[in-house]
Amino acid sequence: MKALRVSDGHTAVTDLPLPTRNGEALVRVIKSGICNTDIEIARGYAGFNGTIGHEFVGVVEESDDLSHVGKRVVGEINAGCGSCELCRADDPRHCPDRTVLGIHGRDGAHAEFLKLPIVNLIEVPAGVSDIEAVFVEPLAAAYGISEQVEFDENTRVAVIGDGKLGILCARSLSLFPSNLTLIGKYREKLDIAEKYGNVTGVLTGDAASFANKFDVVVEASGSESGFSTALDLVRPRGKVVLKSTFHGQPTWEASKVVVNELTVVGSRCGRFTPALELLSSGAVKVDDLVSEEFSLKDGEAAMKRATDTGVLKVLLTM
Amino acid sequence: MKALRVSDGHTAVTDLPLPTRNGEALVRVIKSGICNTDIEIARGYAGFNGTIGHEFVGVVEESDDLSHVGKRVVGEINAGCGSCELCRADDPRHCPDRTVLGIHGRDGAHAEFLKLPIVNLIEVPAGVSDIEAVFVEPLAAAYGISEQVEFDENTRVAVIGDGKLGILCARSLSLFPSNLTLIGKYREKLDIAEKYGNVTGVLTGDAASFANKFDVVVEASGSESGFSTALDLVRPRGKVVLKSTFHGQPTWEASKVVVNELTVVGSRCGRFTPALELLSSGAVKVDDLVSEEFSLKDGEAAMKRATDTGVLKVLLTM
Repeated sequence: MKALRVSDGHTAVTDLPLPTRNGEALVRVIKSGICNTDIEIARGYAGFNGTIGHEFVGVVEESDDLSHVGKRVVGEINAGCGSCELCRADDPRHCPDRTVLGIHGRDGAHAEFLKLPIVNLIEVPAGVSDIEAVFVEPLAAAYGISEQVEFDENTRVAVIGDGKLGILCARSLSLFPSNLTLIGKYREKLDIAEKYGNVTGVLTGDAASFANKFDVVVEASGSESGFSTALDLVRPRGKVVLKSTFHGQPTWEASKVVVNELTVVGSRCGRFTPALELLSSGAVKVDDLVSEEFSLKDGEAAMKRATDTGVLKVLLTM
Repeated sequence: MKALRVSDGHTAVTDLPLPTRNGEALVRVIKSGICNTDIEIARGYAGFNGTIGHEFVGVVEESDDLSHVGKRVVGEINAGCGSCELCRADDPRHCPDRTVLGIHGRDGAHAEFLKLPIVNLIEVPAGVSDIEAVFVEPLAAAYGISEQVEFDENTRVAVIGDGKLGILCARSLSLFPSNLTLIGKYREKLDIAEKYGNVTGVLTGDAASFANKFDVVVEASGSESGFSTALDLVRPRGKVVLKSTFHGQPTWEASKVVVNELTVVGSRCGRFTPALELLSSGAVKVDDLVSEEFSLKDGEAAMKRATDTGVLKVLLTM
């Protein structure tokens, strides 16, 4: 089968044998989505060598339990050891021995086939399109913030970052407060974000007038300056949610966190079921976030395209 | 009157006129305590020039409301503008125009007299000694963590830092969990900490075996390495409380906060009333944390002594 693989800093579509199931399910991938994490892995982040990709929709091709075969599914990307304290508490997302699809110890989704434990797979309702289903993983991550931080209609919320993750955060969290501010660098992306939900776009250069104004600021730009802006915009005793993985060891104004008694919340993965419901009900729209689709064989070009300025989601079709 | 003052990096006991009340209360200081913040201010932190000191017990000498005169008091150190949104919500601690006793825009407590708004003063019960009363401010700051983070008997808690703040955190928080681990550099300080409460002292060099073991880790060492250790010791989805003010912009492993979905809570001031109750009831002991007492006229020597290795609280008597 074909797969888009990273090997010591080189990214290429290569041929390799189908995955050996070993009791897991074999999934034929229909579409996958390129995430910024894929781009970072290709640059050497996380030291991963193998097939990248963790956003996908597919069909179960083989499984020990035949009732799953033929079902259209998405898949939770963390696979725990199954026996540690965290796995027993039903939280394999933090199992110290976990593998993570296309990120850590497990080949990923930019391939014709992948394998995952059956418990990781969730059937996609008929009303959710293939393209929408590819967004389940990042939408779950965005919406998952609402399980870590409390929101109500009076919560003043800002999201920093007008990339696909920032827009997904803005659209899914705007279901709670009566209005949400999205701060970004590109007017055209802010315009897209404003199309749905109660989202108001503000250019980064105009954000200074909002100093200390927000109860919750979500940092989804992945840049050090984004975090610094978040510390400026949040009110004393407010919350900053770190949504994107920073690389290396950024500096930060720790004294501001102490003096203003801020809470900084790290946020990574979310649950898939609520995200599928948001797509199924039409509460969150994602179709307009797709910039381009490529065939898997053109995976290298797709990766390159995903780094272009102004580009949102790039999809691969198998 | 005599006062211990910082002026452009020089610290000296100088003579100056009594404070002009301007509607506030005039307090004759009995004793004051030297805090690490005083030492940092003397080194230039916060750019403060004036009388330092914010831990004190005193007697009201003059007040518009004569019923307060003669009362023995401690004082909340933040004085808000009284009219902003935060002050109206009874939180002058975060008023953007606040002054802070001996720290920001207001002369402090290492002096024969100070002034504070009457609303800042709290009468000290007869059963609390002068020495104990000087500890109300730092004990309030330590115990205040329990108002920001939930603890119960099963919460696994570590405090990093065996200085006076760390020991106060350990003693006051050990009222909640069945045991608390204090991590520090000096065996003799850990021995002092272990005398009261359910506190177990562990040397920093032996802390590595506790990786990912704690639900809550309180960073009270004020060092960058302390924060790094805290990130190592806390379990996934656990909480790190930043208790001490860091200077400058330390680097940090932000990706660990995101990947492990940690919560970092900045914590500065606490309420005085619960701290007075802890001292009055004997639930928290502080007498053994005093290393030495100096007369105010020897304030410079006292400041120097407070920086010596192994020294805990240094007091000034007026």
